[in-house]
Amino acid sequence: MIEHTTTVQVRWGDVDAAGIVFYPRFFEWYDWGSEALFASLELAWPEAFPKYAIVGVPIVESGSRFVSPARYGDVLTIRSRVAWVRAKTFRMEHEISVGSRLCATGFEVRAWIARPEAPGAPLHATPIPDDVVKRLTGA
Amino acid sequence: MIEHTTTVQVRWGDVDAAGIVFYPRFFEWYDWGSEALFASLELAWPEAFPKYAIVGVPIVESGSRFVSPARYGDVLTIRSRVAWVRAKTFRMEHEISVGSRLCATGFEVRAWIARPEAPGAPLHATPIPDDVVKRLTGA
Amino acid sequence: MIEHTTTVQVRWGDVDAAGIVFYPRFFEWYDWGSEALFASLELAWPEAFPKYAIVGVPIVESGSRFVSPARYGDVLTIRSRVAWVRAKTFRMEHEISVGSRLCATGFEVRAWIARPEAPGAPLHATPIPDDVVKRLTGA
Amino acid sequence: MIEHTTTVQVRWGDVDAAGIVFYPRFFEWYDWGSEALFASLELAWPEAFPKYAIVGVPIVESGSRFVSPARYGDVLTIRSRVAWVRAKTFRMEHEISVGSRLCATGFEVRAWIARPEAPGAPLHATPIPDDVVKRLTGA
Repeated sequence: MIEHTTTVQVRWGDVDAAGIVFYPRFFEWYDWGSEALFASLELAWPEAFPKYAIVGVPIVESGSRFVSPARYGDVLTIRSRVAWVRAKTFRMEHEISVGSRLCATGFEVRAWIARPEAPGAPLHATPIPDDVVKRLTGA
Repeated sequence: MIEHTTTVQVRWGDVDAAGIVFYPRFFEWYDWGSEALFASLELAWPEAFPKYAIVGVPIVESGSRFVSPARYGDVLTIRSRVAWVRAKTFRMEHEISVGSRLCATGFEVRAWIARPEAPGAPLHATPIPDDVVKRLTGA
Repeated sequence: MIEHTTTVQVRWGDVDAAGIVFYPRFFEWYDWGSEALFASLELAWPEAFPKYAIVGVPIVESGSRFVSPARYGDVLTIRSRVAWVRAKTFRMEHEISVGSRLCATGFEVRAWIARPEAPGAPLHATPIPDDVVKRLTGA
Repeated sequence: MIEHTTTVQVRWGDVDAAGIVFYPRFFEWYDWGSEALFASLELAWPEAFPKYAIVGVPIVESGSRFVSPARYGDVLTIRSRVAWVRAKTFRMEHEISVGSRLCATGFEVRAWIARPEAPGAPLHATPIPDDVVKRLTGA
């Protein structure tokens, strides 16, 4: 199974008045975990999106459980893995922890969305190319 | 059932390079929908949190399905409702749409968390006061 | 002089652990003030940028003085005006206050940047069209 | 002169629909540059703020010139230095570049603000302690 680990430090602007992380930040970090995993597979988004003529890999569904708070100054470990790859979609799973303490687990189902023919035209998922599937599955 | 509707406009800084909303923004809007619903019940967070000696109503679990994209300039309608209230937690459900087109549905399970005795001390959920339960349930 | 006033409420995610607004948010509000002023002149960015074949009106220089803090729950008034318009650039000035209390004053010098011939090509300022100048100056 | 260099990668959520960085992000990076410089002096904010009984080092004034765009995927170098230290305030100066190409220069004047006696009480600057001055000036 393809996995990747990256770290991020909780910044001053990430926490709310209660001193704990504002929860949408966790989804930014899941996004960042996915981006970092792709980069580790030589599929860095800035190059891969134009190369494969896609607008990106937008989210179809996402969710998270929050187990313990992350606070200002914490160094977070983001562990990301590819849970499955289907014809036009794939699922990422993420764990965020501070040292050995788990803060949150989350997932993202993402679709491979073709660049539309004209700006603003409807977006459609398109088959994930074989070479990308191979990298994402480690096959 | 207690419901509240608010609107928000998609700003330049909310969209990504594909011209569609960066998905963690939806969770910011769910948070905003919850905040607006509380304010409509005379439970505005800036006053209610100190009054009830809580740090806030942090997220235990959250999730979202994304049905169609929101784009720069769209005016979003956020419909929020209280799905249930238990002893120490409650569930919010949200729908975000542009006109009649649904963009996303999401939920948040939140806990009523007492202010800790010392800064940085562990956080614990505490029973939601009766008068708050009544307002949230419309009882 | 062309002026426009809009309001925005300080949200939970806008404040830091000290309970006061994280300062980059003020620049997001200046951006929003500029966007709202343009919209009030029938130059809403989502329509105007494609119509005039520009990538947008990126910032050349910006600055702000912070006079008093904005806090969670404050309703901010953003007063924006067009200070001057030159051939390819213009200057916006903004005041943000809570009731009669001034929080911050800021400015933005922005350029009228043509859409590049190819993605990633260098960006160049181009003359602001006469009809836009007229709207921005009220001439 | 005390200096510190850190790096940050431009993420998907940092860029706008034009594919270039949304300008308030630069101020988030200046903030981050200041935070990293303090940490390099054993004045990491999460420990230093409680230790010195301050709410933080809020901004009095800030400004930036934007020379060339930063784009999605760019790795930014943030060079930060302490320009001067006065009784209750200090000035940070920052340069952000991609390789040898300068993107932006900015500054922050920050104040040493005592923790208020009661929540919501007015905030006042207080003298920067000698040992902090020594670290910031390298004296």
